[in-house]
Amino acid sequence: MARVRAPVGESVLSRAVRIFEAFTPDEPALTVSEISRRTGLHLATASRLVAELVAHGFLARDADRRVRIGVRLWELGTRASPTLSLRDAAMPFMEGVHDVVGHHVQIGVLEGEEVLFLERLTALGAVVNYTRIAGRLPLHVSSSGLVLLAHGATDLQERVLAGPLRKYTPHTITTAVALRSTLAAIRKQGYAYCPGHFHEDALGIAAPVRDGGGEVVAALSVIIPNDAAAAAVPPVVRTAARGLSRALAAGGARGLPG
Amino acid sequence: MARVRAPVGESVLSRAVRIFEAFTPDEPALTVSEISRRTGLHLATASRLVAELVAHGFLARDADRRVRIGVRLWELGTRASPTLSLRDAAMPFMEGVHDVVGHHVQIGVLEGEEVLFLERLTALGAVVNYTRIAGRLPLHVSSSGLVLLAHGATDLQERVLAGPLRKYTPHTITTAVALRSTLAAIRKQGYAYCPGHFHEDALGIAAPVRDGGGEVVAALSVIIPNDAAAAAVPPVVRTAARGLSRALAAGGARGLPG
Repeated sequence: MARVRAPVGESVLSRAVRIFEAFTPDEPALTVSEISRRTGLHLATASRLVAELVAHGFLARDADRRVRIGVRLWELGTRASPTLSLRDAAMPFMEGVHDVVGHHVQIGVLEGEEVLFLERLTALGAVVNYTRIAGRLPLHVSSSGLVLLAHGATDLQERVLAGPLRKYTPHTITTAVALRSTLAAIRKQGYAYCPGHFHEDALGIAAPVRDGGGEVVAALSVIIPNDAAAAAVPPVVRTAARGLSRALAAGGARGLPG
Repeated sequence: MARVRAPVGESVLSRAVRIFEAFTPDEPALTVSEISRRTGLHLATASRLVAELVAHGFLARDADRRVRIGVRLWELGTRASPTLSLRDAAMPFMEGVHDVVGHHVQIGVLEGEEVLFLERLTALGAVVNYTRIAGRLPLHVSSSGLVLLAHGATDLQERVLAGPLRKYTPHTITTAVALRSTLAAIRKQGYAYCPGHFHEDALGIAAPVRDGGGEVVAALSVIIPNDAAAAAVPPVVRTAARGLSRALAAGGARGLPG
């Protein structure tokens, strides 16, 4: 990652955010020097702020002095999170799909111009899958993202259609014309079917989850092997997504705020 | 909650922490006035800080202007969290127990002088259970807490033994003598068995989860009806906890830092 220069007079919160953002699933533990390099904060500033964040439990220090995300940050971010009620409502439906289809079952929501995955169930020996819990993917490349985009605001669709649409495999949708007709097809048929769009060996199928007001608030999806057996799976995903939608409507559960 | 007075000169981060702490699973949405009352921050201060936290996505505003925990806080707290790797490793074992035993299956870790629950699987129509994901319980009252305490540091044990030990039912352990002998029994027999300790109708069974170094890093537990059928369940819980411990040792997964 390129060294960035921190703006002068930046608030403590902005700096804290940049420190949190420095940690990734692949690099969950960093030294203070690494944090300084990634955030562009002076070493002394980074060191002082890390110490304060450790004192609050937002970061934690390993035995070897490397720093990690603290359990307290997870706890405060999770216990009253609107993601938790959606995820809790989704779990029985996801487990049902997982029992029958295996591989990966996941639920994602629209965050900015990406899909953010709230939960993922994975079987041992499942097909390759790049989604992670609390991980993001571009909208045009994942079945969940396409469902969320198909039901998203017009200005969001226009921004994504304007590109660029990064190519991951020869099957990735990379033109506005193809994307536009795919979004229309998803709205018409009620699900997205993406053989090899993100990885040649994998196939994603996603269906919309609606709240009591009929608003699409999430996408429920499976990632399975890219073979002929996949053709039987869309009704399973659609059924679970419809069931979850009814449960949300009945329980008065709501979409994510903002 | 009593009105508290904020210390003068308190750091922005301390104030932000107190704002996050104001939200609970039962009250996930608050007005700025409610936040001000609960944190003891002046209304103007609370309002300004809430606006800044909303700008960073750490809080989000509803259509009705009430404030919630933001998805971004959950995302940053989750994606590189050490809780996630433990939870991911635990899931297949928890799902196996859940398939066989039903009701509630959960995994918790020691945080301060409480057990913090990282994950819970719940069946529809399951017995009453007060644990929640990212929720806490006192150590002496829950089977998970007793397991973590039994394998915890001596000074932690002495602090908890010194009491007070709050009584939830006539079966709650409320004396140091009873607690000390229970902890010894848990270490000897390899699990905690708690009929009606927290709620008359429920029974908790927990077993220790160890990392590659043999350190107890979590407790895997079930909450089931408080009846005679429970006697058959400890081997199931112990087997899953041992399996998870072996998976952690093999995968090089580690306990929570700090």
